Parts: sequence; structure tokens; C-alpha cells
Amino acid sequence: MSAIGSLTGRLDELKVDAFLISALPNIRYLSGFTGSNALLLVAPGRSTLLTDPRYAIQAAQETSGCVVKVARGALVSAAAQLIARRGWKRIGFERGRLMFDAWQRLKETLPLSASLRPVAPVVESLRMVKTAEEIALIRASVLVNSLALEAALPRIRPGVRESELAAELEYQMRRNGAEKASFDTIVASGERTALVHAQPGAEPIAANQLLLIDMGATRNGYVSDMTRSFFVGTPNRKVRKMYHSVLAAQLAAINAVREGATAEQVDRAARKVLRAEGLEKAFVHSTGHGLGLEIHEPPRLGRKDKTRLQAGMAITIEPGVYLEGWGGIRIEDTVVVTANGCEVLTPTTKEFIAL
Amino acid sequence: MSAIGSLTGRLDELKVDAFLISALPNIRYLSGFTGSNALLLVAPGRSTLLTDPRYAIQAAQETSGCVVKVARGALVSAAAQLIARRGWKRIGFERGRLMFDAWQRLKETLPLSASLRPVAPVVESLRMVKTAEEIALIRASVLVNSLALEAALPRIRPGVRESELAAELEYQMRRNGAEKASFDTIVASGERTALVHAQPGAEPIAANQLLLIDMGATRNGYVSDMTRSFFVGTPNRKVRKMYHSVLAAQLAAINAVREGATAEQVDRAARKVLRAEGLEKAFVHSTGHGLGLEIHEPPRLGRKDKTRLQAGMAITIEPGVYLEGWGGIRIEDTVVVTANGCEVLTPTTKEFIAL
Repeated sequence: MSAIGSLTGRLDELKVDAFLISALPNIRYLSGFTGSNALLLVAPGRSTLLTDPRYAIQAAQETSGCVVKVARGALVSAAAQLIARRGWKRIGFERGRLMFDAWQRLKETLPLSASLRPVAPVVESLRMVKTAEEIALIRASVLVNSLALEAALPRIRPGVRESELAAELEYQMRRNGAEKASFDTIVASGERTALVHAQPGAEPIAANQLLLIDMGATRNGYVSDMTRSFFVGTPNRKVRKMYHSVLAAQLAAINAVREGATAEQVDRAARKVLRAEGLEKAFVHSTGHGLGLEIHEPPRLGRKDKTRLQAGMAITIEPGVYLEGWGGIRIEDTVVVTANGCEVLTPTTKEFIAL
Repeated sequence: MSAIGSLTGRLDELKVDAFLISALPNIRYLSGFTGSNALLLVAPGRSTLLTDPRYAIQAAQETSGCVVKVARGALVSAAAQLIARRGWKRIGFERGRLMFDAWQRLKETLPLSASLRPVAPVVESLRMVKTAEEIALIRASVLVNSLALEAALPRIRPGVRESELAAELEYQMRRNGAEKASFDTIVASGERTALVHAQPGAEPIAANQLLLIDMGATRNGYVSDMTRSFFVGTPNRKVRKMYHSVLAAQLAAINAVREGATAEQVDRAARKVLRAEGLEKAFVHSTGHGLGLEIHEPPRLGRKDKTRLQAGMAITIEPGVYLEGWGGIRIEDTVVVTANGCEVLTPTTKEFIAL
């Protein structure tokens, strides 16, 4: 069944006659359209992709399972007209993916007989469990990403700027087949490794300090995500101990992944290891997240997420510790959940590399 | 006056006691915070930036004019708590920048005495006219972008893949000081130049065809945007004629830019030239857009946008023609509006280059 088909089959259950999809990754998942401006009206019989004239040719080439309508002016207005013409009464919309003003404009332009109904992230739920084809695409993205790191490794030495290294990593991703980086590559050295989302700076990497690289590639629309921590020089005992604590936490979390486990159980497995080392407070984020067409997808492997893992989910496992004024260490792989555990897709070594 | 100060001064006029800013570029503009998760509550006396623990250190370093509060859990809930504690009654929010579900959750968690009020894009209005410092940053971004094209030009020859060229262009941007590309670089050759937003393909660039490059850099957060059309080989008469029609349209639009002119007047100037050549229907997008911290900012230089241009606005001028099965040509510069006209920041030649 097509992706749109599996959604139209659920409209009754969602108690809507038509479902307005506004999130671009959801539109891509359902229809194949990769452009930057579209709305998709999913309805039994005939679904319609609305886009603007810039994408007329591309939309006709890319989409399947829907007709393409090129609209001049605001797509929301075109959607309201289509809804009026088709006489739909109950219009679902993606409550977490539609801006307030688009909702308001839609409400004001719809016929009085039609009502708007906020719908939970159902397309995101469909997307959580990947098809075999999607897993192959994520695997390819992971490989591209690891190849890029491997190709750039010889360039890492004292004196190289963080920003140069980030540029090199992203260039190598693309040389190896990625469209782009799936997020802004993080290259941080020294104390700046304590900034969880550090932007690469213009400072040269100095000797005898930590280096953290968090990178991901987008290939055929699908993303990968990997973090590795290095030491430029010879790490002292404290650094080595810290690295091995994080690695132990990461392996414990990987070990907790299996179909039927909850997302928070995996998070707890990592946290438990770090707590035993007195490092729990230094672990300031969750253990991981789903990924696929987007870099952050459900589930969130953190406190309170009770999502049960299913075979075919692609997730990251990425505990870390961060001490202001000292530095931070994070180790991250992309893995796919299986019936009895998981497959770690990331082939890059997790030995503590001293550069 | 600080950016936050100029906004708190307008709260009375907006009829709100506090203004919840949810758009990250607006938060950056007002507070300096560059992270990926924040809300900013602007209020007289004391404004508060809410972010999560990943950004605790960074937010403290980057922000000015506000206090930083690190929240665990949803920032919207933290905002509601703060609003309750401070006793604000009329809470403005950015109607085009807040998702429906965040608005709904906020509405449900606020004290009964508080009400939410949708506010027009006022921060975007403030941002439309750039300060001298911002223009200097945009100028630097434009230069980086043009340097990157110049550095990559020798690599353009038949046999090179579109995707390799895009990778090279983005690498050169970064080598020249950009953080990243400001949007996915477009490299399209042959008939694919008719796709306004073509993604670079794996096909090698062939001889005797059009090549279109649309690229922009982000440097210190500020963006640039440039398109150039080339011919690989010797262009025939039709191609040359088409190029010169687009160039004439682009120069006519640049000539129409001045303080006091409306955005749609500039668009009309480009359209008029193409209409005289029978190419009006092939020009399927607007003539340009504002840019700064974001690649698409108001005004839109298109039909019906009656914004009066003001000195200090940074905009693109980018007419194009697209014929399915033949190809497309677009020429784009980044310019700054002045009292008597505009300054074209883009230094790259607009001669029709045969490669």
C-alpha cells in the first residue's frame, strides 16, 4: 500500500473527511515531493498536492498517489477553496505543524459548514517504524558519514581551526554521496567541548585537549548522526576515565535497546551507569532520538517517554558528560531496533583515539 | 538603544504586558542567543530567555538585555509559569511563528486572568531595515559567497557532476569564512535549469548547455544570495538573446530600487521588460526578497506587496525565465536600498560567461 493509502485508510478513525498535511517531511514521506513549499490534502479517492509555480515541473515529476495543483498566492487560501469545492466538513490538520496564523486564516476562509480539527502527529507515528527500503537509505547515509570522518581524520592536528575541520568533514560527506550535512557540524575543542551544541570556532585546535565532533549526512533525504570524542595528544587519567564512563553508559543503553523496551528504559540504562560514577548531573540531555527524513524524530529516548520500541525504528544512542571549565565527552551511534536487540549501523571505532 | 529595548518601548502600543518571542531569528536579533531551542519573554523591566540545559553555558555567554532561565521540560510550560508568577495579563505572541499546539498548550496552562493576543510580525518589521553593523555583516557574507564562486569556477567543465560542484562551492564558502551555506546550493545544468529550485544531481555536466548556480553563504549569522547563469560551450543566438533579456530585466529592477518605491514597483519593472520580449509567463516567481539573519525576509518584491522600500533594507533582485524542455536563466544580486537608489553588493560579473 502506498504511504498516502495507509493514511486515507485511517481518516474514519481520525474522524475527519480530509486531512491537511503541512509538515514538509510528512509531505515528502506521503507523496515524494521534495520542494520547500507545499500543502497536501489527503482524502479518500483523490489526494491533492498544492504548490507554487516554481515547483510545477518538479512536483509533476516527483509525486505519486496524488494530483498536483499549482496555486498562485497563499497555499492556505488554495486549500480553503479546494475544501469548499469538494464539500468536506471535518478537516483535520497537523496540530504541531501548522502555525497559528495559518490555522486562523484557514478558519476564516473555510465555508461555515466546515470545521477544523487538530490531529496528533499520526504521520510522524507512521514514520517512526522504517520500511526495509528506508533502513537501507539510513544505512547508506551512516556509511557516507563515517567515510567522511575517516577521510578527514588525517587533517586533525594542532593548528587546524575548528571551522576548517567542519568544512572538510562536510566536503567529504558530499564527495561520498551526501546532498548535505543533516545539521550544522559540531567541531569543538578544549573547554568548548562542554558546550553541547558548540558552533565551530575560528580558534586553532591546540595540543593536549579534548576534541568533539558531532556530524551527520543527508543522503537521498535520509539522515545519519554520529558523535566521536578524541584527544589531541596523550590523555591523562581523568580524561581516560571519563571517556570510559561515557562509553560504558553508551554500551549499556545499546544493550537495553530491543523491541518492547520503552524509550525511557534505554535512557535510564545510560543514566544508571553515569550515576554510579557520580556523573549524572553532568549528563544534561536525553540519551537519543529517532531519525529518518528529519534529524530529530520521535521517539525521544529520555525521561517520561514511554514509547515502546519497535523493530525497524532508527534511533541514536548518545550519552555525554559536560563539565564547565573542563570539557565534555559524547559518544553517539545510529542504531536500528530489532526483535532481540539492535543493529549498530555506525561502523566507526569507539576506541578512544589520541590524535 | 538595545534591540530588546526598542521592542519593550512598543508593548503599550501593541496593547500587551509581555510579548512571547518564539522565532529563533527574532530571538537572536533581540538577545544575541544563537541556539536552537529558546523562548524569549519580552517585558518592561526584565526580559527572560528560556532555554534547555544543553544551552545553559552558551546562553549565559551570548545574551544581553535579558536574564537566562534554564528550564527542564517544555519551554512553553516554563513560559506559562513565569507569566503566572509575574502576574502579566495580556500576553502577546508571534502569530506567524507559534505552532497551533504550542498556542493551545499555552492557553490551557495560563492563569484564567491572562489572555493570549496574536501579534503581527513586528520584530520582522524592525529587522527589515538593517543597522550599519548589519549591512557590514551582509556585505562580508556577499564577499565570501562571490569569492567561493570565483575559487570554484576553474572546476566547472564538462564531466564534473552537479553535486561535486555544489560541494566545492560550499567548501569554498567555508574556507573563505562562512559558517555554512545559507540554503541548499542549486547547481543545475541543461534542461534541469528550468527547475527553479533544482537539487544538484549526480549527472555529469555535459557540453553545450546551460548551467545555473544559485548560492548563498551564512557568515556570522548573516546571509547572502546570488545566482549566475553560464553556458558550457558557445551559446547560440537564442540562448544569448534570452540571457540578455533576463539581464535587462534585472538591471531595470535594480534601477527601480530606491527609498520610497514600493516592493511591487520593483517587481513590475522586471516584469515589464520580460513582457516586451514575450517572456512574462516564463517568469514564474517574484523579483526578490529581503534577507539578513534569514534567507527569506520581508519585503517580497512581488505582485501586491506595497511595502515602501527604506534606506538600509537588504534585498535580492533575481528575475528569471524558465521554459520546460529547454532550460532556465536567472541572474541575482544582493543589494542595499539607499536614499537615491541602491548599492549592488555582489561584485561578481554579470557578463554571460561561456565556460
